[in-house]
Amino acid sequence: MSDFKAPLRDIQYVMWELLGYEQHYQSLPGGEEASPDVVNAVIEEGAKFCENVLAPLNAVGDREGCQWDDGEVKTPTGFKEAYQQYVEAGWPSMCHHVEYGGQGLPQSLGTILSEMVGSANWSWGMYPGLSHGAMNTIEAHGTEEQKAHYLTKLVEGSWTGTMCLTEPHCGTDLGMLRTKAEPNADGSYSITGTKIFISAGEHDMAENIVHIVLARLPDAPAGTKGISLFIVPKVNVNADGGLGDRNQVKCGSLEHKMGIHGNSTCVMNFDGAKGFLIGPPNKGLNCMFTFMNTARVGTALQGLAHAEVGFQKSLEYARDRLQMRSLSGPKNPDGPADPIIVHPDVRRMLLTQKALAEGARMMIYFTAQQVDIVDRAEDEEARKAADELLGFMTPIAKAFVTETGFEAANLGLQCFGGHGYISEWGMEQNVRDARISMLYEGTTGIQALDLLGRKVLMTNGESLKRFTKIVHKFCKANEGNAAVSEFVEPLTAINKEWGDLTMHIGMLAMENPDEVGAASVDFLMYSGYATLGYFWALAAADAQAKLDAGATDAAFYEAKLKTARFYFKRILPRTRGLVETIKAGAGSLMEMDTEHFAF
Amino acid sequence: MSDFKAPLRDIQYVMWELLGYEQHYQSLPGGEEASPDVVNAVIEEGAKFCENVLAPLNAVGDREGCQWDDGEVKTPTGFKEAYQQYVEAGWPSMCHHVEYGGQGLPQSLGTILSEMVGSANWSWGMYPGLSHGAMNTIEAHGTEEQKAHYLTKLVEGSWTGTMCLTEPHCGTDLGMLRTKAEPNADGSYSITGTKIFISAGEHDMAENIVHIVLARLPDAPAGTKGISLFIVPKVNVNADGGLGDRNQVKCGSLEHKMGIHGNSTCVMNFDGAKGFLIGPPNKGLNCMFTFMNTARVGTALQGLAHAEVGFQKSLEYARDRLQMRSLSGPKNPDGPADPIIVHPDVRRMLLTQKALAEGARMMIYFTAQQVDIVDRAEDEEARKAADELLGFMTPIAKAFVTETGFEAANLGLQCFGGHGYISEWGMEQNVRDARISMLYEGTTGIQALDLLGRKVLMTNGESLKRFTKIVHKFCKANEGNAAVSEFVEPLTAINKEWGDLTMHIGMLAMENPDEVGAASVDFLMYSGYATLGYFWALAAADAQAKLDAGATDAAFYEAKLKTARFYFKRILPRTRGLVETIKAGAGSLMEMDTEHFAF
Repeated sequence: MSDFKAPLRDIQYVMWELLGYEQHYQSLPGGEEASPDVVNAVIEEGAKFCENVLAPLNAVGDREGCQWDDGEVKTPTGFKEAYQQYVEAGWPSMCHHVEYGGQGLPQSLGTILSEMVGSANWSWGMYPGLSHGAMNTIEAHGTEEQKAHYLTKLVEGSWTGTMCLTEPHCGTDLGMLRTKAEPNADGSYSITGTKIFISAGEHDMAENIVHIVLARLPDAPAGTKGISLFIVPKVNVNADGGLGDRNQVKCGSLEHKMGIHGNSTCVMNFDGAKGFLIGPPNKGLNCMFTFMNTARVGTALQGLAHAEVGFQKSLEYARDRLQMRSLSGPKNPDGPADPIIVHPDVRRMLLTQKALAEGARMMIYFTAQQVDIVDRAEDEEARKAADELLGFMTPIAKAFVTETGFEAANLGLQCFGGHGYISEWGMEQNVRDARISMLYEGTTGIQALDLLGRKVLMTNGESLKRFTKIVHKFCKANEGNAAVSEFVEPLTAINKEWGDLTMHIGMLAMENPDEVGAASVDFLMYSGYATLGYFWALAAADAQAKLDAGATDAAFYEAKLKTARFYFKRILPRTRGLVETIKAGAGSLMEMDTEHFAF
Repeated sequence: MSDFKAPLRDIQYVMWELLGYEQHYQSLPGGEEASPDVVNAVIEEGAKFCENVLAPLNAVGDREGCQWDDGEVKTPTGFKEAYQQYVEAGWPSMCHHVEYGGQGLPQSLGTILSEMVGSANWSWGMYPGLSHGAMNTIEAHGTEEQKAHYLTKLVEGSWTGTMCLTEPHCGTDLGMLRTKAEPNADGSYSITGTKIFISAGEHDMAENIVHIVLARLPDAPAGTKGISLFIVPKVNVNADGGLGDRNQVKCGSLEHKMGIHGNSTCVMNFDGAKGFLIGPPNKGLNCMFTFMNTARVGTALQGLAHAEVGFQKSLEYARDRLQMRSLSGPKNPDGPADPIIVHPDVRRMLLTQKALAEGARMMIYFTAQQVDIVDRAEDEEARKAADELLGFMTPIAKAFVTETGFEAANLGLQCFGGHGYISEWGMEQNVRDARISMLYEGTTGIQALDLLGRKVLMTNGESLKRFTKIVHKFCKANEGNAAVSEFVEPLTAINKEWGDLTMHIGMLAMENPDEVGAASVDFLMYSGYATLGYFWALAAADAQAKLDAGATDAAFYEAKLKTARFYFKRILPRTRGLVETIKAGAGSLMEMDTEHFAF
């Protein structure tokens, strides 16, 4: 079984051909350097690193896991060396601002690199990945001294960062958190409490770890309005920026998990650790929310990564494995049986993975463009519009892409039959690793409430309209195009139905707020299928135009058209059941007495 | 987190109240002894063993796995002792014929015991479970001497058995198998070849293991028509039935798997092992097929088992875990937050598990009644009818219940949020263990072809009609009953649509045989939802009647009604998408060129 190959043709197709990344980059201040030549060279270099260095370590990480010894954590064989190579090549600084040592390339390029890193080895990718939250926090809210001491080290990658939010009794409900921060005489704080599920909380890959910790000041109001943010370094930093003594924060243990074994998931004990307030007191949660969208887009990538890997490996297996004859006559008459790719149901499983992976790529790259605009555009209107679109797309990308990514990973395993269950093929690791993505950074249920409650209903549908207008414009522009009417007609209908459904839920919710929770996940999944419908129709129209213009690599565009057709015929109809369950309302969910669920 | 509790109330409800097991048992020759008192005592005793002995070993089995040492396999701590208790209590012999040492109770009672065993500890249950295939084979096809030597030992449980089918290059496609059987001068055969994925192929729980091996005689025709069955004992059996020398069959290694770690999944090397032909030469596959339905019903139980366990644990967690407030106002105002069971989406996840688990129980117990009739009824017509119904129900039960069981196990995990991913809660083991069920004993795709191709289309829809007539009769009988019209009306519509869809596919398939494969899995899932619709309507009508009659435990029946309502409002609508994808046909699956799936 060959290892991961970065899907460069499709990555570059979505960027340059479908979503107009060239013009997009040129329109960003400081984006002039991100020409296709430069960017393609960066991506191709990144692909080599992912294929040659990271992918071979993926199974090693799963097999060895991380080892805890009295607070120290040893990462799997090769992880540390790979990280050194990564730092030496300058990857950590790629998309950070020049003034803190960054290379100033657009954030979307970081997303594309992260896709390849994550597909090659998700567990490894979490170590540099977690640093981004810390960097973004310090860049937005830190003092110049904090930036000088911590941000530059994080940007160059010699230190990594974490986000310390969850406690044993609270994950979603951060208002309940108990970790306390007591002021010291020198202006620092003494942080005491226990944090759990801290990814990359302790490891041997960098000389220091910068924890961003949520804690309460002594006089803080109860609930979410009394949470402040603190920088707590693993090793204290001297006034000259050099490393001092060890801080009172220690990894108490590692969690035993279903997957992502290569990543250290830590219980972190803060025992009067020295911390520094970052941002205004009691506004910690607001400061955090600034980056929530970015972090969640990062997690959406995990769904894409596992779908891509499952697809690649199961496609290769389906072409090689000989088993049974095609019902429509032998396709490999000289062999003992036909390759299983001849069987319609195997094709259904492969095409589902392909449509979901390539669809997710379009959705996420589009979302990443909004991140770029929010981050860089000079026009405030443009920033505001992109921010609203980003807010709308984020929960869909996070929850829909991880849910369908898990489905795809399972279909990849299924193509292997019983062999899929055996570790050596890597398919079961792909499923186990994928399973976390629907849980962390806000479960699917939390994303769904964010989408339907905060984003859609609280804006009276305005944030939905921002996207449906884009769809409407596309449909109008292609109204008379018979060659793509098989896509545009159903998309037009879905786009209208989406708005009607939203109105329907909104009316019900005015009577009973539980209607929001009752409809939320089905509405999110509906929105995901609708969104993917737009992107597949867009790809189909683009491919048709290229074919009409006599493109040289016609097979690529024909495959896009056929995948779009599969999506519309075989995936989009899932919305039919969702419409019914959304309309069914909250009644059947709420009428069961809590005591009568079981006897 | 409390351990597994056997759902006795629901088990007994389905048997005695819903499916008329009392009358069913009394109508079976030899079933007179299976009175409700006797059977309830047996089930309650079985429940104690499962709760107290097997359930505590479930996590142990996962953690320790099996250890291979030079061909010997050590099972996890406690597995061997639990098996001794199981044998001493006489469980292995419960449903086997009296003449070979059995207790002669109906097979459906074995199914119900297996449900509890499997829910408590699926990996452990596979050791005695695998013996059934060997016992059934020897009973049906063995000589009297073979029965005396092997069957009695298997029935008493002092030996266990296996089925050795799969080889590295063939699983589904057994026509390709290569293991050879060469005649010896003494009438025995010398068996040589490698078998993989042999569950319970080697272990330390019994003094001998009886392998039933598929192999080819020297002059055998190619393909499936040249396969014969052989008994190959681990330890040779002397003429007096005592144990002799070790046979030339050895466990070469254990597979490393995603789950069911407590069960030994063996590579078995037969190196001129002594074997004995069982049944007629070259008819091995036909002999095997006799028991395929029974084995597959056994695997269907795994879906039910993991759904039940996930439901029990996530229900307890949802009642305990405090997180956020209900959107419709605090439900636990004195606590720091509400229990998560107040949130509509958590209820959706719990009720989905409940509806799928209890629905699967009804479906499987109904199917088990057909097994009893096929096994025992004196009336040949009744046997034939039950056999056809069994053949129809089996692939639905096997594939639909394992697919939805995996879904339920994942929803159980999801209710725990991030904690679900951590091993100590047991939810991730439940998901990993469940994943095999859609693969072995024929994948979902194979079941779907069996249902649509062999069972439905090859009988011109007669086997489907056998079931839809039952549904039709129920709907007719309840036509005027306004209290249950919310169930009966949609069921009536589905029942008609089911037949129409079948006709539609049949027409397409006459033009293009690939239409069968293209529709198969969606048709199977549709059939599963339709079947469960019948059982939930049946339960609702029964519960309504009990309530009308003033039943004392009204809460139980009200919960049945509410779960049925949830099923019709929230699960059955999934058929809407399936109707569309079935009708979409094979086109979008088959038009992609094999070389163009990826670039």
